[in-house]
Amino acid sequence: MVSEGEAFCPGHVTAFFEIVEDSDPRKKGSRGAGLCLSLGVRTVARVRDAPRRSIDVIVNGRRGKAEVTQKVAEKVLGDRSCEVKILSETPLPVSQGFGVSAAAALSTALALDDALGGNVPREELVAIAHETEVECGTGLGDVVPASLGGMDLRLKPGAPGHAEVQKFPITANLLLAVIGPEMPTKAILQDPGKVAQINRVGGPLVDEFSREPTFKRLFELGSRFAAETGLANRTLLEVVHASRMFGRATMAMLGNSVFATGNSAQLATLFLKFGTLQKCEVDNEGAKLL
Amino acid sequence: MVSEGEAFCPGHVTAFFEIVEDSDPRKKGSRGAGLCLSLGVRTVARVRDAPRRSIDVIVNGRRGKAEVTQKVAEKVLGDRSCEVKILSETPLPVSQGFGVSAAAALSTALALDDALGGNVPREELVAIAHETEVECGTGLGDVVPASLGGMDLRLKPGAPGHAEVQKFPITANLLLAVIGPEMPTKAILQDPGKVAQINRVGGPLVDEFSREPTFKRLFELGSRFAAETGLANRTLLEVVHASRMFGRATMAMLGNSVFATGNSAQLATLFLKFGTLQKCEVDNEGAKLL
Repeated sequence: MVSEGEAFCPGHVTAFFEIVEDSDPRKKGSRGAGLCLSLGVRTVARVRDAPRRSIDVIVNGRRGKAEVTQKVAEKVLGDRSCEVKILSETPLPVSQGFGVSAAAALSTALALDDALGGNVPREELVAIAHETEVECGTGLGDVVPASLGGMDLRLKPGAPGHAEVQKFPITANLLLAVIGPEMPTKAILQDPGKVAQINRVGGPLVDEFSREPTFKRLFELGSRFAAETGLANRTLLEVVHASRMFGRATMAMLGNSVFATGNSAQLATLFLKFGTLQKCEVDNEGAKLL
Repeated sequence: MVSEGEAFCPGHVTAFFEIVEDSDPRKKGSRGAGLCLSLGVRTVARVRDAPRRSIDVIVNGRRGKAEVTQKVAEKVLGDRSCEVKILSETPLPVSQGFGVSAAAALSTALALDDALGGNVPREELVAIAHETEVECGTGLGDVVPASLGGMDLRLKPGAPGHAEVQKFPITANLLLAVIGPEMPTKAILQDPGKVAQINRVGGPLVDEFSREPTFKRLFELGSRFAAETGLANRTLLEVVHASRMFGRATMAMLGNSVFATGNSAQLATLFLKFGTLQKCEVDNEGAKLL
């Protein structure tokens, strides 16, 4: 017997954040703020009974490493003996701060559970995806907001049950611009100097944002975070600065990329001098079965 | 001892083509026409004497399959026993008709030969890259024009010594827009029905272009090729059609993508409704050592 499940999870950008350590990956994560993207990851999970267990992950038509997705599938599968195919498609680039690994993880958890009969509560599937992202070191705070949609203020880190997240629905067009090479999330999160810098700047910004959690403020505080942590290089800061003539932009953490809103044609002309461009909207629905 | 070579090869888009079969991969290839892109692949080859031979290929920071590059490196290396690292960087997406495998292959051949002392004639390095592309089924006609730069009219297929290519320097801004999922070059080139269709339409267009090889004509004949071969889907044809208000566009073969020239801001606004966008110019220099 073959059964199938299909799910979509929005991409997610973070404007600023603070890392919260914990030995329990369901409690570890980040406080911060960001936006869900109407571009994301669409995953089909195909399950067939088989004497031997196998999990095959194919992203955009290619067999890849996809460590997070592979591990999430193993956890959702439990001790079942099945042949599993995970087929994920995304127009978003990886390692550019668009939360692709989180969206792949969560869409896989939802799609695979659905293919298996849909017995696991949604909160637990979100928790599995969060926990696995943290274990793999590929992200800290994208999964939970991506499960909700909208603009997020993450006041407490971790998986559902631990996290405290406020969601703000936003209607806005976004431009996503990739300005430089991929950024190694894992290496940055393992560098004690960088972590200290991120937390010194990020912590107070989360508190400041909680007093005025507006779309405009997200960009203002994000630009400060990008500059003061040193995570943005000079080109990126110049792009963010130049964007102010036509709207607002800030860096997508952790990527050599920006997200922006405002006069699309003028912003597009500016960004195209530096890199690759995509347009989308804020997603207000969060991850869902299709 | 460690030695290093570095090379750049432009990406290349084909507007229309005809496949020419031959059992000799240096004679096999395509007739057609296209453009070289100022975006391409930059490759560093690092060579170290070692008791055992190894070739490591890393593209955009990731260890990947990169079959063509791997094989090109093996051929250039000959029977030497070395540890070779090939580090390629590109902002262009793969499998979207931008000639990335060809540019990776040729930049690798040039960079590795340079690291080894630069003893192989350039024409032979171009021939190795062409031959390997053909053997791997990843492309038929990008390598030779990418070695030259400019707008190309390929009258006879194959590697240097067999090919007949005219080069036309062009000063123009280009927009590259990815409209749909990656296209499987290999599968299309192995489908006898598709090959027959491509040749029936493409052959006469190459002859027609040779009578008036202008930048404008490249787009006009390209659009006809995209429509009449059925290689373009409906969205892509609509995008090409709508572009006429602001300039010209045609499909990049074989990709779900277009290349365009004209009013950048207006074209960008149009393309961003459908996909990912990049800006570049026509490269008139061709592949080169850095």
